[in-house]
Amino acid sequence: MKVKRSERLIDMTRYLLERPHKLVSLTYFANRFDSAKSSISEDLTIVKKTFKERGTGTLETVPGAAGGVKFIPEIAKTEADEFVNEMCIRLSEPDRLLPGGYVYLSDLLGEPSILRQVGKIIATQYLDQKIDAVMTVATKGVPIAQAVSSYLNVPFVIVRRDSKITEGSTVSINYVSGSSERVEKMELSKRSLKRGSRVLIVDDFMKGGGTVNGMKSLIEEFEAELVGITVFAESTFSGNRMIDDYSSLLCVDEVDIRDKTIHVSPGNYYKTK
Amino acid sequence: MKVKRSERLIDMTRYLLERPHKLVSLTYFANRFDSAKSSISEDLTIVKKTFKERGTGTLETVPGAAGGVKFIPEIAKTEADEFVNEMCIRLSEPDRLLPGGYVYLSDLLGEPSILRQVGKIIATQYLDQKIDAVMTVATKGVPIAQAVSSYLNVPFVIVRRDSKITEGSTVSINYVSGSSERVEKMELSKRSLKRGSRVLIVDDFMKGGGTVNGMKSLIEEFEAELVGITVFAESTFSGNRMIDDYSSLLCVDEVDIRDKTIHVSPGNYYKTK
Repeated sequence: MKVKRSERLIDMTRYLLERPHKLVSLTYFANRFDSAKSSISEDLTIVKKTFKERGTGTLETVPGAAGGVKFIPEIAKTEADEFVNEMCIRLSEPDRLLPGGYVYLSDLLGEPSILRQVGKIIATQYLDQKIDAVMTVATKGVPIAQAVSSYLNVPFVIVRRDSKITEGSTVSINYVSGSSERVEKMELSKRSLKRGSRVLIVDDFMKGGGTVNGMKSLIEEFEAELVGITVFAESTFSGNRMIDDYSSLLCVDEVDIRDKTIHVSPGNYYKTK
Repeated sequence: MKVKRSERLIDMTRYLLERPHKLVSLTYFANRFDSAKSSISEDLTIVKKTFKERGTGTLETVPGAAGGVKFIPEIAKTEADEFVNEMCIRLSEPDRLLPGGYVYLSDLLGEPSILRQVGKIIATQYLDQKIDAVMTVATKGVPIAQAVSSYLNVPFVIVRRDSKITEGSTVSINYVSGSSERVEKMELSKRSLKRGSRVLIVDDFMKGGGTVNGMKSLIEEFEAELVGITVFAESTFSGNRMIDDYSSLLCVDEVDIRDKTIHVSPGNYYKTK
């Protein structure tokens, strides 16, 4: 039974949003809605226009017999700025201050609405790059990796500091923890990353950059390629940071344990713009 | 500027899908689209009908001045069955077999399209229940917890076996690992769960049920309430399982290390239906 335009638009929108970066053929929609390809094509023009106007993302049209449409999620700059500013306020809440000058983030990184925005923002940063996998380190990086991977629609892999039976054979490397200068070990399941994969590293927090540097070594070990590094928050680091080329959403500028204040500003991704 | 119905439907669908279980007022949409409430109301009737017909979920209408609509994501039974059957095949792939009879799952649990379906299926199981938080244990449960929490739109909390500075004060309990009968420790950041919270436990794999039982104790320790337990996969367990009341999506019935075969069938949630 032929489906009305209004219903087609609703279901089409839902279908595309759930499959970012995936090519969907016009024929698929034509069959799904028992409608002519010309009508589907008109529908898609409206979806494309609305997505663009509302900052939802780009609907790419791939011409030809094997063609179709591909939804590329994006976040509008104003929406991203607003979110980052809101996060600056949230991160500055004095009761987040932990002994040693650490900042409590676990509540934020367990909040689905926050993770959706973080995922969209980081995915938007890498729109022009081909990415095969998102890499992070257990445990607190996982929610960020998953959020980003959901918008890029590529798998994420989890590097661990402790080996687990359920990972099978692993490749391990030693790395120097940047802030404490201890040598530690991290490992990744051998089958989780193919040679030549283009990898995006994400993490929740970066101080000295040692952990991220460890992941870089792992990527080399797997003969894969590093595309970029983005962290949710970085802290100003007095020592020699091991990583130069990264982006951050937030920067913890100053922590005063005495006065119980935390000062947080937008990260370098926003500063350079 | 007044927005056309077709564009309203697209943006409304997107807006609602991104905010499950959240009450959105008609006024919000009326302002967003510079349209009369009566038109918005008609739009929502179309969205509701389409969501229902396509198995996307329910659009609940809350009447009154403080009213509006709420989108409750669901998965259609046929789609869930199809997914579970597909997972039975994927899990049975002989190269997933690890020493000790374990089954490699990390690739599946790093695949966004799989996590979306798992999230929807588990969220659908608890449609009628009030849930305040999803709980899991690091590391492999995290992707499942995040997927479920995204569809329920409630936070998730991560129980850890190792304490981390960045968690602040924690509450810890000892538990008996069901399969190995060792006594182990798990802990949860004190501030991550409010007293009286209604908690859903999820995990990737259950054998003896010791880990899940540990999380149950932690919930008691926090004076919170257990709503339910769902695991992605369980394995048939010859010993005395510590947990009775749980649901599983998949069941690893038999693992033959000699012949390198794994037999997987739908979990108890599907068997009882």
